[in-house]
Amino acid sequence: MNQAAYAAVDWGTSSFRLWLVDRSGQPLTERRSDEGMTVAAKSGFSAVLQSHLAAVDAAPDLPVIICGMAGARQGWVEAGYVDAPAPLDAILAGAVSVSGQSRDIRILPGIAQRDTSAPDVMRGEETQLLGALGNEAVSEALVCMPGTHSKWAEVRSGTVARFATFMTGELFSAISRETILSHALTGAEATEDRGAFQDAVVAAFKAPAFAANLLFRVRSRQLLFGGTPAEARGTISGTLIGLELAAGLAKHMPRGSVTLVASGRLAAFYRLAFDTLSVAVQPIDADEAVLAGLSRAASAIWKR
Amino acid sequence: MNQAAYAAVDWGTSSFRLWLVDRSGQPLTERRSDEGMTVAAKSGFSAVLQSHLAAVDAAPDLPVIICGMAGARQGWVEAGYVDAPAPLDAILAGAVSVSGQSRDIRILPGIAQRDTSAPDVMRGEETQLLGALGNEAVSEALVCMPGTHSKWAEVRSGTVARFATFMTGELFSAISRETILSHALTGAEATEDRGAFQDAVVAAFKAPAFAANLLFRVRSRQLLFGGTPAEARGTISGTLIGLELAAGLAKHMPRGSVTLVASGRLAAFYRLAFDTLSVAVQPIDADEAVLAGLSRAASAIWKR
Repeated sequence: MNQAAYAAVDWGTSSFRLWLVDRSGQPLTERRSDEGMTVAAKSGFSAVLQSHLAAVDAAPDLPVIICGMAGARQGWVEAGYVDAPAPLDAILAGAVSVSGQSRDIRILPGIAQRDTSAPDVMRGEETQLLGALGNEAVSEALVCMPGTHSKWAEVRSGTVARFATFMTGELFSAISRETILSHALTGAEATEDRGAFQDAVVAAFKAPAFAANLLFRVRSRQLLFGGTPAEARGTISGTLIGLELAAGLAKHMPRGSVTLVASGRLAAFYRLAFDTLSVAVQPIDADEAVLAGLSRAASAIWKR
Repeated sequence: MNQAAYAAVDWGTSSFRLWLVDRSGQPLTERRSDEGMTVAAKSGFSAVLQSHLAAVDAAPDLPVIICGMAGARQGWVEAGYVDAPAPLDAILAGAVSVSGQSRDIRILPGIAQRDTSAPDVMRGEETQLLGALGNEAVSEALVCMPGTHSKWAEVRSGTVARFATFMTGELFSAISRETILSHALTGAEATEDRGAFQDAVVAAFKAPAFAANLLFRVRSRQLLFGGTPAEARGTISGTLIGLELAAGLAKHMPRGSVTLVASGRLAAFYRLAFDTLSVAVQPIDADEAVLAGLSRAASAIWKR
């Protein structure tokens, strides 16, 4: 029997992650799978969770804290939204219990911005914010959380004041696969030319209105001057990230730095983009942030 | 035997149009098919053209003038590009003969902007410009030619000075079909809500950097407030057109009006977008423009 105090689960649309966590909030073991909401909605959320808990030999009464799409309407149990401006503590208070289970299972709510002129939703990122800002929640932060649907949040005194979602990652996928630019990427390993990426970040940041033109230049450049798939890929990626940064940094150019919550390749690209624009960044690993957020929720809910 | 002086062909990527034209430049008959470059590259350009000419009972020695993708590298015979700044007359002079044919067949070249910082190409739109501006080619015009790849051209004294391509139409298709927003369009007839379209045009025109956020709001709005597929469709379309207009009108807000070369639904949407932004438009039918351009080329080449 291990020393786990609870299991923490980040249940996204297409991915599932589970950690066993000890009393001090340290992860003991981790499991990842592609049994996200889409898969679990068919195979059963309870069965998916139970199989992973059994695989790590979890005690039958080990409690489980969950964030993400498991709490969506199409998820396991709808956990609703806390309305923005949303105190991060309200997320803890809004956790929903999953009934009919042998163990104590809670799902954290998302955040909704019910502003008819700027409606927005997040589900999962609120837990990253909880973990990323932690004890610094009293201060002011502009947080960038890149992804399929990147989120930018303004957090003041532990409250998510405003946030905005950008379809950057999904636009990259759709444009790379489903437009004439796909030809320019043919034969490309999934690498991006660093210089082309930086040039595109600057171009889109300076003239965001030209985004749909900057993208077409990938095609024109290859026709007229040649060019590698890696350059094309760098230009598409840089254009879309530069466009996002032009908006994210438009209203509230932070006095200090932008808090960048990201992991892996995405973290590297966004850091390079911010560096290119000479914007200081405070990097926080997204995986660590979500686990810290889940741990903070577990501590608050179960007083452990 | 009809009174045709020549056949005029607009041969695009996915469409083929042929007119028999009399000595005065008036169309006698018209044929349309989907045997664009993509299809003709497999079935044979000569065979496709011949079948249409036979169907309209064209004389065996009737000459043919062609614009569009038939002159691309992957087309019938490569007609190259005239470099910008490109006098429209140079397009006439750059026509390429198709050899080995029983009749006189000429393909008009495109225009290339060999500027490494703003490379661009057009093929087919130069003939629309030729037809749209006609005798007014001495004046100054800002021309918007909407489409899968919208073109904006600055024409001065009969010369295409600068131009830029925007992937507006193709982005609309990819975003509507291949992203999470496709769910918001489910059950939609292909109609756009006029108010949602206008709101989105204004929003994207005012804050183009937020384009990827304005698009996501389609999703958020449906989750939080409901909304019809027609509203979603109007918002996506309006966002992308507003973004294009923000760029097209950015540098050279015309003293007079924008020359809008478009047909059908696309013409209606762009007119509504320009009206919404209180920008005066001089509308020209795109079909008429390309035929007028081909006729002007035929007159110059064959002195008829």
